[in-house]
Amino acid sequence: MTASIPRSDEDDYTAEAAEKRLDFAREATGASLEHVGSYSFEPSLVQGNVEHFSGVAQVPIGIAGPLLVNGEHAQGEYYVPMATSEGTLVASYNRGMKLARAAGGVTATVVADAMQRAPVFMFSSALEARKFGEWVRDHFDDLKREAESSTSSGSLSDIEQYAASRFTYLRFNYTSGDASGQNMTGKATLAACDWINANYQGIEHFYLESNLATDKKTSQVNVLRTRGKRVVAELTIPGDLFEREMHVPTDLVYRARQISNLGSFMAGANNNGSHSANGITAMFIATGQDVATVAESSAAVVYAELRPNGDYYYSITLPSLIVGTYGGGTALATQRECLELLGCFGAGKVRKLAEIIAATVLCGEISLGSAIVAEEWVAAHDLLGRNR
Amino acid sequence: MTASIPRSDEDDYTAEAAEKRLDFAREATGASLEHVGSYSFEPSLVQGNVEHFSGVAQVPIGIAGPLLVNGEHAQGEYYVPMATSEGTLVASYNRGMKLARAAGGVTATVVADAMQRAPVFMFSSALEARKFGEWVRDHFDDLKREAESSTSSGSLSDIEQYAASRFTYLRFNYTSGDASGQNMTGKATLAACDWINANYQGIEHFYLESNLATDKKTSQVNVLRTRGKRVVAELTIPGDLFEREMHVPTDLVYRARQISNLGSFMAGANNNGSHSANGITAMFIATGQDVATVAESSAAVVYAELRPNGDYYYSITLPSLIVGTYGGGTALATQRECLELLGCFGAGKVRKLAEIIAATVLCGEISLGSAIVAEEWVAAHDLLGRNR
Amino acid sequence: MTASIPRSDEDDYTAEAAEKRLDFAREATGASLEHVGSYSFEPSLVQGNVEHFSGVAQVPIGIAGPLLVNGEHAQGEYYVPMATSEGTLVASYNRGMKLARAAGGVTATVVADAMQRAPVFMFSSALEARKFGEWVRDHFDDLKREAESSTSSGSLSDIEQYAASRFTYLRFNYTSGDASGQNMTGKATLAACDWINANYQGIEHFYLESNLATDKKTSQVNVLRTRGKRVVAELTIPGDLFEREMHVPTDLVYRARQISNLGSFMAGANNNGSHSANGITAMFIATGQDVATVAESSAAVVYAELRPNGDYYYSITLPSLIVGTYGGGTALATQRECLELLGCFGAGKVRKLAEIIAATVLCGEISLGSAIVAEEWVAAHDLLGRNR
Amino acid sequence: MTASIPRSDEDDYTAEAAEKRLDFAREATGASLEHVGSYSFEPSLVQGNVEHFSGVAQVPIGIAGPLLVNGEHAQGEYYVPMATSEGTLVASYNRGMKLARAAGGVTATVVADAMQRAPVFMFSSALEARKFGEWVRDHFDDLKREAESSTSSGSLSDIEQYAASRFTYLRFNYTSGDASGQNMTGKATLAACDWINANYQGIEHFYLESNLATDKKTSQVNVLRTRGKRVVAELTIPGDLFEREMHVPTDLVYRARQISNLGSFMAGANNNGSHSANGITAMFIATGQDVATVAESSAAVVYAELRPNGDYYYSITLPSLIVGTYGGGTALATQRECLELLGCFGAGKVRKLAEIIAATVLCGEISLGSAIVAEEWVAAHDLLGRNR
Repeated sequence: MTASIPRSDEDDYTAEAAEKRLDFAREATGASLEHVGSYSFEPSLVQGNVEHFSGVAQVPIGIAGPLLVNGEHAQGEYYVPMATSEGTLVASYNRGMKLARAAGGVTATVVADAMQRAPVFMFSSALEARKFGEWVRDHFDDLKREAESSTSSGSLSDIEQYAASRFTYLRFNYTSGDASGQNMTGKATLAACDWINANYQGIEHFYLESNLATDKKTSQVNVLRTRGKRVVAELTIPGDLFEREMHVPTDLVYRARQISNLGSFMAGANNNGSHSANGITAMFIATGQDVATVAESSAAVVYAELRPNGDYYYSITLPSLIVGTYGGGTALATQRECLELLGCFGAGKVRKLAEIIAATVLCGEISLGSAIVAEEWVAAHDLLGRNR
Repeated sequence: MTASIPRSDEDDYTAEAAEKRLDFAREATGASLEHVGSYSFEPSLVQGNVEHFSGVAQVPIGIAGPLLVNGEHAQGEYYVPMATSEGTLVASYNRGMKLARAAGGVTATVVADAMQRAPVFMFSSALEARKFGEWVRDHFDDLKREAESSTSSGSLSDIEQYAASRFTYLRFNYTSGDASGQNMTGKATLAACDWINANYQGIEHFYLESNLATDKKTSQVNVLRTRGKRVVAELTIPGDLFEREMHVPTDLVYRARQISNLGSFMAGANNNGSHSANGITAMFIATGQDVATVAESSAAVVYAELRPNGDYYYSITLPSLIVGTYGGGTALATQRECLELLGCFGAGKVRKLAEIIAATVLCGEISLGSAIVAEEWVAAHDLLGRNR
Repeated sequence: MTASIPRSDEDDYTAEAAEKRLDFAREATGASLEHVGSYSFEPSLVQGNVEHFSGVAQVPIGIAGPLLVNGEHAQGEYYVPMATSEGTLVASYNRGMKLARAAGGVTATVVADAMQRAPVFMFSSALEARKFGEWVRDHFDDLKREAESSTSSGSLSDIEQYAASRFTYLRFNYTSGDASGQNMTGKATLAACDWINANYQGIEHFYLESNLATDKKTSQVNVLRTRGKRVVAELTIPGDLFEREMHVPTDLVYRARQISNLGSFMAGANNNGSHSANGITAMFIATGQDVATVAESSAAVVYAELRPNGDYYYSITLPSLIVGTYGGGTALATQRECLELLGCFGAGKVRKLAEIIAATVLCGEISLGSAIVAEEWVAAHDLLGRNR
Repeated sequence: MTASIPRSDEDDYTAEAAEKRLDFAREATGASLEHVGSYSFEPSLVQGNVEHFSGVAQVPIGIAGPLLVNGEHAQGEYYVPMATSEGTLVASYNRGMKLARAAGGVTATVVADAMQRAPVFMFSSALEARKFGEWVRDHFDDLKREAESSTSSGSLSDIEQYAASRFTYLRFNYTSGDASGQNMTGKATLAACDWINANYQGIEHFYLESNLATDKKTSQVNVLRTRGKRVVAELTIPGDLFEREMHVPTDLVYRARQISNLGSFMAGANNNGSHSANGITAMFIATGQDVATVAESSAAVVYAELRPNGDYYYSITLPSLIVGTYGGGTALATQRECLELLGCFGAGKVRKLAEIIAATVLCGEISLGSAIVAEEWVAAHDLLGRNR
């Protein structure tokens, strides 16, 4: 006999409603759920963020830094909150940050900005689909007007077209202000599609999403065409400084980089770096980002140079980093505090946050990349251990 | 003048040490960090999970279910803790679980199991690299012995070889008991490599990792060859039940699935489904998994059939789901409780957990996939809102 | 003591010069090279097509057809010359053409047209690279003028930008008239780049090609953004006709298609069809196309539908079919004749040729796809044999 | 009123039958087909290679060389027949061969060898599919016996398994003697599958090919797991020699290589080199290979090093080069002669041929790679021209 999870028709976002659910779950399973029930904020705060709210996951936060960033928006030193349970992670990023600071700080630049929704339209033939594509190109101004009528922050930049069979796939690209923008693009694109459906004859079917967005998925189209912020972090490290701090000369690290490039290429990986996902995920959990977008945000393109004098130029490009400083989980209790810790809460901060994340990622790449070469890697894990 | 984050030489895992760091951060940045400093466990618990421990991220948990699973290891109804800040997520999975229950429950099967480390060996020529590869094949028993000497839970299954240029890339595949196994594979493979280096002449260079593992990265090699658990979830839904619950007939949903397949194929995506990352991430945060592995765990292969009678067979294969019920963050306070909620804490539970996650993912796929077709999707987001 | 291949300083494109080289090769190797030396045209014809001209490969041509095409440019029945040495190939395409004719003919549509050159510019930082990108966008008209100054047939459509590290990759997209256009795009883009280099300060390095074109290589960017012609071929086959001719019901063929889709997706293939490369290559050799572009031209995206009444809708999209009816090998002796056989020699014929090729490819897909299902496949190979 | 292409019931491989078809085509289309009808061999020779034989494509052959190869099987100087209509191609390869000879010759090594057929078996559930996979592993010896019973040259090496949904995809890997082996693998795998179907209960459906082979398609699985021959070509070029011959210093060429790597990675290309398809295609046409396999044979993985003293190590790995010296088109008139020119006709020559092709490819890569850097590239095309 199945029992339903209790809900309150009056107000489901209260401590009582949450506790009632925990009690129900305790009874059903025998789990204690004591710590899950311990949180420090008003449940009303999470309305719009979760349904069946019952408690919290307490994810440990370590602070790394100071991280010295030379960005357009992030300038100076930052203390970076990282929520993780992977031992050595914070220490490793911290080690990279120390090196980066000694080398003058990480340069970080947002080079492109685009959030998508990708509807698809189906016609009786490829020819009809192509004609529709031409019509869409001719009516961009109308579509922009309609799309933007549904949003105050979003702006439609362009509409890419991808043709296959008797379909026209459209990829609407927006800038989304301080929000990560997935919901805005959904609404705005629906508004545009409603107008299309009202003004164009011959559409057999229409779906608001076609898997060309590609939301919550890594993809080559995102690597190529950007999703969220496209951010580049760069650092040039003097050869002697590198060897002193990382215990390995730059030419060995550079050679390992080349071999990793080759490995990634053969593997068909979305990333020729080491572990960008670690830093991104830890910061995403801490700052209330949509953590599931680690699927696409973790894509990375590393390019390094060994300079004739032994200096090491290292860059990492994150082509699809999905971040926001408004909306989503950014106003939750600890999440907002972590954004404040970075000076990134509120209006006009999203590019600053993107720069700090990219700079953090770079520090972690150099640290782990060096450790692998120095064969310190497994040893480091042994020392700091994993919790068992 | 840069100030360093305070550390305690005596015992850095105390409330005092944590608070000292928060104070330092408050002073440096002006952030209040009040909620971050609110946690319900002893800091000593997180030793081995985080460095510079300072507090916690409180991530809201909603409970979805009951989820009916017909697995080899998970059999019966489960209440699924999902830690997220994305509005509608829990509701959407819950909706899918209701449908799945009415359809008899989700069948889930772990079909393969492999955790990797991929060292690379460099030689003077491709010919020398090939000879080494032959030697490795001939000495598998030795390598297995050496690798397993460093671990009680890991077992070396096989060693794949990938040749390029004057390198031999080896991909060591292990089963890892209840742990996700990344650290074990690092240690065990290092032990094997130490033996190789002691017993084989002519190796120019050696790196313990070559980006063919591919840890924290999505890749085709993982889709093909498995990383972590390869799990399949399946469900056949009667056509009339589907239409009653999802408000859309199965033939329309099936057609949308075909178009999504095409979109994914053109996009070069690691996933032809909708949003497996959502369910996986929410459960990973709740249950103390290594959330950064969402990069690879989010890969998915969907296969569906519209039966002549209108029934809908739906399956999703997760080729690289990285899970553990031991080690990592699984013994942390709320994380352990959430594992207990699922009956998955302790020895011999990892396949059960993998089955429950895959079953959950399937429910979310069917729910969102139907909503997109029913054009309810944006509306649903409006109704439940996002927190701003 | 190495001997050089003989060359004539006066006129290297004569029967004598060719024969002198064959004699030299005969002496060096003992090969007879009798048939290689047998050709029916004046060697002066191949000037600009080959260096060290010595003779010919005689590749057998079989004629398939009639192929009934309902295109915008190709309308009616065609006899298709296929140069191949793979037994069963012509028979298989011919079988598909017979079915297609009975079903009313193949609809074929060129849906996009773009030939590329992709130079890259290197700057001191990602920020400088981004600024350059903005300048390029602002100076499109200038770049178009400069690029087109070097060509009578090419027209610059747009310039895509791909940012990574401190580089700006530009992908110049042209239409190229009746030529396949690779050379034109090289010259035109060089002209544009010369103007860029003369008018923009701060470029550290510049290369005319960056592997984003991607010439002679298959790639996701070509699948997404088109290279050469993007052509769709479509056919709806009545269920009973299909079963009568192909000896297998459409539902079985459709199911096999789904499983092939899945296989391709897991394999990371550039093609979810069966063997588009066979038809394309055979027609490319026959009609003087640049056969090496089979690397990219063979990419294909198949989409099929089983209609409720058992009819089978089948489409194949060739996203990067590189064809020309002018330049390259199109004016050579047999090559020109084969273009004439198709009514495709001379001005204004390139889209017609693209349509015929796509229609041919579709016929081969349906034929082989059915044969695999009917388990006739291996048997067919046995019967018609391979030449040993 | 459609007319059928004439066929002779008695003997369709005669000059008369061919001429009758040409006459028919002339009448239908007005094409002269004079040169197509000019060939120097007996039509009976092409039986098993083509149906509806009507004549030939005469593809110009240029001879490049001498190419100095230091292989296991190819040792010494070779004159390489290249059938092409792309101006500058032979000259460019020839230029690279000259450099390679001066640098001591190209080292070439076949590092793996595998030809595939990939059947798929469908079950009622993923669990049943997994059980079948276990059974297959347990019965490898039986399957090997059955598969090899149908072939004198093929040997089954191993059977890879790829699981998804309720399917088990099997990838049978064979060595195939001197033949390229596609047909052999089809027959042998069918024999094994017949035995499976007779000895295993519960198979719902079975298809001999599932698109995991992946025949005539490029794919990541082929890059990873080899298809045909996996060959590496290597060369170390002294810095001063390089600069003297190529007119560009090695550090500039090396930098351009890095940028091309990045471009290929972003593009999602199957090849980070320049134009391996050119050399492979030209040699394939000349020597009677299955030219359509350029789709997969053109995949390439380049790895280069700039040595501290300025020397340049360059290697290219062809992971899926499909070659044979027996069967297919290898015994045709000009094709056999070209194999003889290389000393590669007859038994035991296939690895020699693979080595020569890989060495040729390397020469073309270095030549074009240098030309791009030297900005000679477009100029070179202008000079030698394209035939218009």
